Amino acid sequence: MEGAVVYPAVAHRLVCRDCGRAAAPTLEPGCGECGGLRHVTYEEPPRPYQPLIPWFPIALGQGGTSLRRLPLAGGFGAKLEFLSPTGSFKDRGAAMLVSAAKAFEVREFVEDSSGNAGAALAAYGAAAGMRAHIFLPSSAPPMKRAQIEAVGGIVHPVEGPREASGAAARRFADEQGLPYLSHNLSPYFVEGMKDAAWEMMWQLLGAAPDHIVLPVGNGSLLLGLQRGFEELLEVEKIERLPRLHAAQAEAIAPLVAAVNGEAARPPGRTAADGIAVAEPPRLAELVEVLRACEGTALSVSEEAILEWQRELGRCGLWVEPTSAAAVAGLAALREDGTIADDAEVVIPLTGTGLKQGGGGAV
Amino acid sequence: MEGAVVYPAVAHRLVCRDCGRAAAPTLEPGCGECGGLRHVTYEEPPRPYQPLIPWFPIALGQGGTSLRRLPLAGGFGAKLEFLSPTGSFKDRGAAMLVSAAKAFEVREFVEDSSGNAGAALAAYGAAAGMRAHIFLPSSAPPMKRAQIEAVGGIVHPVEGPREASGAAARRFADEQGLPYLSHNLSPYFVEGMKDAAWEMMWQLLGAAPDHIVLPVGNGSLLLGLQRGFEELLEVEKIERLPRLHAAQAEAIAPLVAAVNGEAARPPGRTAADGIAVAEPPRLAELVEVLRACEGTALSVSEEAILEWQRELGRCGLWVEPTSAAAVAGLAALREDGTIADDAEVVIPLTGTGLKQGGGGAV
Repeated sequence: MEGAVVYPAVAHRLVCRDCGRAAAPTLEPGCGECGGLRHVTYEEPPRPYQPLIPWFPIALGQGGTSLRRLPLAGGFGAKLEFLSPTGSFKDRGAAMLVSAAKAFEVREFVEDSSGNAGAALAAYGAAAGMRAHIFLPSSAPPMKRAQIEAVGGIVHPVEGPREASGAAARRFADEQGLPYLSHNLSPYFVEGMKDAAWEMMWQLLGAAPDHIVLPVGNGSLLLGLQRGFEELLEVEKIERLPRLHAAQAEAIAPLVAAVNGEAARPPGRTAADGIAVAEPPRLAELVEVLRACEGTALSVSEEAILEWQRELGRCGLWVEPTSAAAVAGLAALREDGTIADDAEVVIPLTGTGLKQGGGGAV
Repeated sequence: MEGAVVYPAVAHRLVCRDCGRAAAPTLEPGCGECGGLRHVTYEEPPRPYQPLIPWFPIALGQGGTSLRRLPLAGGFGAKLEFLSPTGSFKDRGAAMLVSAAKAFEVREFVEDSSGNAGAALAAYGAAAGMRAHIFLPSSAPPMKRAQIEAVGGIVHPVEGPREASGAAARRFADEQGLPYLSHNLSPYFVEGMKDAAWEMMWQLLGAAPDHIVLPVGNGSLLLGLQRGFEELLEVEKIERLPRLHAAQAEAIAPLVAAVNGEAARPPGRTAADGIAVAEPPRLAELVEVLRACEGTALSVSEEAILEWQRELGRCGLWVEPTSAAAVAGLAALREDGTIADDAEVVIPLTGTGLKQGGGGAV
């Protein structure tokens, strides 16, 4: 499908982060030259004072989430990303990736996910009239499966660890000749995250926050925020980049290990299933981004994650444990002095507690 | 608590719909004179060109929901009310009622609910630092209970039919000397719904829709929309009222019976649990409103509700069956000619499918 005309016709190229080769728009996730991952670049300069709305022929009401001040962990602005049609921030990326797929006249696609991204791609796929095959671990919570099936997505349960679903999805896509719209690999998915940066800038009346603390699994939001703020800096809408801080669970913290130049420990179990990613494909890029913005990566305990989830509940917001990990991270960063008392901090609350299922089980 | 100063200090009175007596602001749901239900009136004329935001010291990011065009049932604008912090439109009313309670320095309150309203009052109560006692049928789905407990609400399960929870809540409130913040009775809850009308007007570029079809149980949204549009008409922001159409399930349709001058049939079972209300306390007022706006009430089959829920899913939106009842209603009203092909129609999609629990069960 290399070289198809992309609708909406915003002229762009895909540039490989490894070999630097620029290619025409395509849904192939990897560079044709070296297999590396890519990002989107524009032929015209970006116009961040305009919302991305014209970019999304396929939309369900994503984005434009509220920013509310919460008195927890020294105070922060909570960006309510769970107020998205499928209940998580993944809607932003899914809207962009499915819009790109629509441009290539895709009618059926394959994706693998442990939950939120699969639900989002199935929903936006449905809105675009596409059949979505979502491969997910057979151990995934019933709610995630129900959510995919409710929008007509076809669930393919796969035995074994998370990676087995990815391998099965890729195999199925090859066999059937269907595009593999991997949210972990596609540059369009990351690109869709970008307008969260622009919204924060508007909501803070024209300034970037000093710090953003966020949960990081595959890191699409981290990469998208960095790209968004870099563009805002480029067109002089902001004066400096915010420092981005990646919160991971102690049980699975490959980015923390990589930033410290250590080997990752074998993954354990965590309630924060949205960041239970042992081998993020864009790990090197995540390390680069943290260096570029003078950010940090830190891990938080299961106890802290669940305690901050309860604290958020006491403020009236029921979010999934993954989101609470970032608040636990802020508390630690305030305590060790990395984030000053008077610093402006934003935390995206990435997923709703309703996905957790009944009975308070994780 | 009669006569306390209401913060924020917007001067208003509570007027009884039965005897017409005006009273100072109070949290008592019934008229002190005759026990009738009341509504809010303002000493200054309303200013509908301003959002209600200054009215809500207690807020969690409710309101401001997207309006998206869907190609179903002849086409309509879907107002995505389920994009609310607790996943349903009840957040609007809960924010207003809890804000009023805050003005009266309430620290603990009692409410009864079959689901969405209890979750919303518990969440906004938490945001206001109040202890919320929520009485609900012991048969309520685990997710509704989990949602209340996640924000620190105290669940009181009650055996027997829905009405038993109301009686138990009232008794407990009397015994403990706590305010009974009934969303079904309080005029503040209805008042909170009003800005949905204002948002629709903005989103339609300054016009009211020709028709609004909505699911009606206790009818707080129907009453709030009518009040909102009446105010918009009064200040000449719109030229005429939209016609409001109440969709109920065939199994429980007291408003349809009342509009037709018939006695309601004994209630049956319906998947649309949000409108499974056999005896709405404001029934006479609902009939009046439908007459005033030349609206209708109609009932839809279980089959139609579940079929339209699936159709909405195929558009990428997973909503609860209650919301789908309104789309079933629109299909019927288009078919019988009540709503013309070219009429502008809005349907509020009131609650997320995530509340339904895993496995697709109702």
